[in-house]
Amino acid sequence: MTGKLFGVGTGPGDPELLTLKAAKAISTADVVAYFAKQGNASNARAIVAELITGQIEEQLGYPVTTEIDRRHEDYKSATSGFYAEAAERVAAHLDAGRNVAVLSEGDPLFYGSYMHLHVRLAHRYPTEVIPGITAMSGCWSTAGLPLVQGDDILSVLPGTLDEVDLRSRLDNTDGAVIMKVGRNLPKIRRAIEAAGRLDDAVYVERGTMANGLSMRLADKPDDVAPYFALILVPGWSNRP
Amino acid sequence: MTGKLFGVGTGPGDPELLTLKAAKAISTADVVAYFAKQGNASNARAIVAELITGQIEEQLGYPVTTEIDRRHEDYKSATSGFYAEAAERVAAHLDAGRNVAVLSEGDPLFYGSYMHLHVRLAHRYPTEVIPGITAMSGCWSTAGLPLVQGDDILSVLPGTLDEVDLRSRLDNTDGAVIMKVGRNLPKIRRAIEAAGRLDDAVYVERGTMANGLSMRLADKPDDVAPYFALILVPGWSNRP
Repeated sequence: MTGKLFGVGTGPGDPELLTLKAAKAISTADVVAYFAKQGNASNARAIVAELITGQIEEQLGYPVTTEIDRRHEDYKSATSGFYAEAAERVAAHLDAGRNVAVLSEGDPLFYGSYMHLHVRLAHRYPTEVIPGITAMSGCWSTAGLPLVQGDDILSVLPGTLDEVDLRSRLDNTDGAVIMKVGRNLPKIRRAIEAAGRLDDAVYVERGTMANGLSMRLADKPDDVAPYFALILVPGWSNRP
Repeated sequence: MTGKLFGVGTGPGDPELLTLKAAKAISTADVVAYFAKQGNASNARAIVAELITGQIEEQLGYPVTTEIDRRHEDYKSATSGFYAEAAERVAAHLDAGRNVAVLSEGDPLFYGSYMHLHVRLAHRYPTEVIPGITAMSGCWSTAGLPLVQGDDILSVLPGTLDEVDLRSRLDNTDGAVIMKVGRNLPKIRRAIEAAGRLDDAVYVERGTMANGLSMRLADKPDDVAPYFALILVPGWSNRP
């Protein structure tokens, strides 16, 4: 009998935003696995720290993350070798009959690191994915910002898009979430302003952390923004 | 002292997909309020039924839902009067010092009915929004379908868009979620096929219910589809 693989969403940061199902899967797992940059602590593990009470832990340490351009061949070869090896470490536990909960910040199949294990293991072992609250959902909830309603279109966009593309996509959507803000902030602001939506846009940093903040994008200086800050552009312009 | 308003996401259907925070807010509320079509039971209440143990219940019964076109003035006037009245019923509890948990299927500020109360009450009373697992997240988790990764763009689209618009948006996105399938299924399929993405698309019905099903869209006949079925078109074409 092999073990069962669980991809478990830990939500955006607040331990209370775990689902009941996720909490149970982590508490009862034989092994808890998580990604983290080599030498760093895992954010996902920190969120669920109170549920880890003696399970075997498997830290899967990324060799590289943001230092190399993702489109570069070096990035792909370094990371694909790493994911293959991480998958085999998890597989060894499953082969030994141990259930493994792989933690994923936010939602596992929505920009989650767990996806790299899922595509390598889900066809080989019984697998269950437990969804999590996404970072964007945590952010608009903290900001108290109604995002989309009715027949609205929502676009989730990386801040790495060029300014013309960003602006044109903002012209053609109701709501938008712009991720990976960081050093892209000045460009994103110009695109939002050109689309005539600066007054409604909201900047959110560390959305569901105790020290989180949200403010009108118009009031946020172009100085520093963390990579994981988000910008929310609400839809729902036609309210009954 | 007035009470506190909680907008509480109940998630997509499985009671275990409530967050710990949502479960606590519902259990400790003085009043639990929920929308439902007049004469019908509330889906959101059914999800959290085990947590309702004597709280005051406030059912907010929609006078109309899908029978009138949303863009029609009759729909707007009927619903805006209804939302104003529902808000005042909730406000009366808050004025009396009672905490009110307003249930919202999925996530409250993401296509949620709670939004109509939030815009009428959040500036008047202390308010907290507790995010929930969205229906789309429940669906791709049940289907085990990795949706978007890295710099992918995600588009959330209503199936009510016309075929040309749908196809053009599918040509210009990585991942897509198409909601409100129902009678729009044949048109959506044609748009997805024209965009060359039929082989990857997945059809999901009652994603996180015990009797849910998911299948390749190519294998789903054009016969009947519920209004709340979803179609998922995965991104992440460039996997390391």
